[in-house]
Amino acid sequence: MTVDEEAMELHRKLNGKISTEAKAHVKDRHDLSVTYTPGVAAPCRLIAKDPHEAYNYTIKGNTIAVVSDGSAVLGLGNIGPYAALPVMEGKCVLFKEFGGVNAFPIVLDTQDTEEIIKTVKAIAPGFGGINLEDISAPRCFEIEERLKKELDIPVFHDDQHGTAIIVLSGIINALKVTNRTIEGTKIVVNGAGSAGVAITKLLLRYGFKDITMCDKTGILSKSTKEDLNWMQKKMVEETNLTQKTGTLADALKGADVFIGVSAPGIVTKEMVATMNKDAIIFALANPTPEIMPPEAKAGGAAVVATGRSDFPNQINNVLVFPGIFKGALECGAKAITEDMKLTAAKAVASLIPDSELTRDNIIADAFNPGVADVVAKAVKDNYISEE
Amino acid sequence: MTVDEEAMELHRKLNGKISTEAKAHVKDRHDLSVTYTPGVAAPCRLIAKDPHEAYNYTIKGNTIAVVSDGSAVLGLGNIGPYAALPVMEGKCVLFKEFGGVNAFPIVLDTQDTEEIIKTVKAIAPGFGGINLEDISAPRCFEIEERLKKELDIPVFHDDQHGTAIIVLSGIINALKVTNRTIEGTKIVVNGAGSAGVAITKLLLRYGFKDITMCDKTGILSKSTKEDLNWMQKKMVEETNLTQKTGTLADALKGADVFIGVSAPGIVTKEMVATMNKDAIIFALANPTPEIMPPEAKAGGAAVVATGRSDFPNQINNVLVFPGIFKGALECGAKAITEDMKLTAAKAVASLIPDSELTRDNIIADAFNPGVADVVAKAVKDNYISEE
Repeated sequence: MTVDEEAMELHRKLNGKISTEAKAHVKDRHDLSVTYTPGVAAPCRLIAKDPHEAYNYTIKGNTIAVVSDGSAVLGLGNIGPYAALPVMEGKCVLFKEFGGVNAFPIVLDTQDTEEIIKTVKAIAPGFGGINLEDISAPRCFEIEERLKKELDIPVFHDDQHGTAIIVLSGIINALKVTNRTIEGTKIVVNGAGSAGVAITKLLLRYGFKDITMCDKTGILSKSTKEDLNWMQKKMVEETNLTQKTGTLADALKGADVFIGVSAPGIVTKEMVATMNKDAIIFALANPTPEIMPPEAKAGGAAVVATGRSDFPNQINNVLVFPGIFKGALECGAKAITEDMKLTAAKAVASLIPDSELTRDNIIADAFNPGVADVVAKAVKDNYISEE
Repeated sequence: MTVDEEAMELHRKLNGKISTEAKAHVKDRHDLSVTYTPGVAAPCRLIAKDPHEAYNYTIKGNTIAVVSDGSAVLGLGNIGPYAALPVMEGKCVLFKEFGGVNAFPIVLDTQDTEEIIKTVKAIAPGFGGINLEDISAPRCFEIEERLKKELDIPVFHDDQHGTAIIVLSGIINALKVTNRTIEGTKIVVNGAGSAGVAITKLLLRYGFKDITMCDKTGILSKSTKEDLNWMQKKMVEETNLTQKTGTLADALKGADVFIGVSAPGIVTKEMVATMNKDAIIFALANPTPEIMPPEAKAGGAAVVATGRSDFPNQINNVLVFPGIFKGALECGAKAITEDMKLTAAKAVASLIPDSELTRDNIIADAFNPGVADVVAKAVKDNYISEE
């Protein structure tokens, strides 16, 4: 049976990959009076006086929404809310299995930015956090920024920040095994959608100075401004130090790091050979990366990471998002700050002790027990120290 | 420990009365590939082609939302979304415990009719049904009517219809034990909010002709029209045959049935004594009814029902709503029709065989196993025969 066939059978059999379960059981009239009326009025009255008590007496303290409009689902594109639901349920499963976080999928029957913002704000009281998922760029940037500003619970677009955090954690370790420092390292990010933008922002914040972004039209610079959306325009102000122009191949000459969140097979062995010695290649297009690992190594790459489980160094957000929300909920965080993201990246990087770091072992296995706890602790410690 | 103290302790300990649980477990890379990427793309593609397949491959087939804006919560009034959450979670517990239905609470940060309608429509794709709860009248009427019209999943305002169904089922049996027929029976409904209106409508649909509605200003008639909301204006067109005016006491003279969904202690023994012989009293204000059962009996009532568990004949919606949605989800119903409601009421009434009916035993015990199955079957059979 192929993976597809097995997936179809599993989804049909389960008819939904999550369920809602009662933690309080109602076997007799007494149970009913304590769980529902008249007893339930007591916590209601307390929360009416102090809404913050909702964190202590309701699901708000440990439940998040996984919200999508189905506009940019996996490699499937704009398939709408119904077809996006299996992915969102899957995400909820991962939140629970890896982080012990209760997560419920909310798929939206609108792709209008303002309506999405309004809807998420309207349903927010019952949730302790919002994980945005598979919303297309550049709408995702505005939706996230507005919700972060207008809500007092963490809002996190995993396609952006989960990816950025796991990439940064991999880069931290890749620098170590190739004896590089932040200062001299030249980075090319190919793909200027939600992931590419967020990766670039987090790398800048971590301290990298020399980053060039590309997309299918080539190098992004001020001279290509008319073709850029508002977020990309912002990005060229902070990247491409010398404002060079040209193709991805031009960008790669003399670069140390390639990070692709773009399309299959667009990088060749020859292009890798023009990069600096012991190049670092993160080819994250999935399932077919920008360049296959053996090709990249043949071109001279020292470290190759992909999204695939059948090669070393798998870049997988599941190392990040369960722990991020676990930590945020446990400390009642009102937001996931930039510093919490950096802290999370360092925590994921530290899962592999220096003594065990090799070119083929820069990213921990997602199935290591305790990953989410390490990330959660880092996030909490950082949040509490900022408070 | 009082019920209140016990409820506070339980709610604090549980920190949310429901959880979301993974039905698919992810213990290794293979699980991940089947539950999430790349396998999940297979059901996504199928649903993208035919959205109806969401009923077979996702939670849509067996999950409902319990939606409230917190504007009319229990006896607590307009306490808002945060304080309403324990009640909505409790409702979700009851859906699961009594009907095996997955239910998730959605509490809304708006009390604007249009915004509520928009929000519920926006989140509807992931749900198989919407249970509206504790939304104040008359907004609840418009919200429900519009959502029924504009959505293709069942929308059910339990405060209205759950109450109406359980009341009708009790009245059916009360007529039997007092040897009455539909034709001659004069009914007074006191309280013209969501429950009172829905009860009156369902009684009319069942065949009762002589119903008089009252509220705190007395008998509702065309001459009191300026004080009525649009729904109440509609109701006086169909009720109060002789368009009499006056007080509740005036309405009760010569009536057979009193149904109160109003306020504690407003009916006296003397008022009951002016009703027809062997009067039927449904005093449903909770926890203190319109008249206590011993008083009502002293006034000559034959059958007395309340919302309380410490007297016979407890009127409790939990006999109705779990089975209604269980049935609707199992047959993929697009709506809960008026006929499905009548069928459900008859099914609940039939839970007590004629041989066991007495004046103090007209309503089945909610904890009887199989109640939800009986209601669900009636609802399904009716829906399928209408299709």
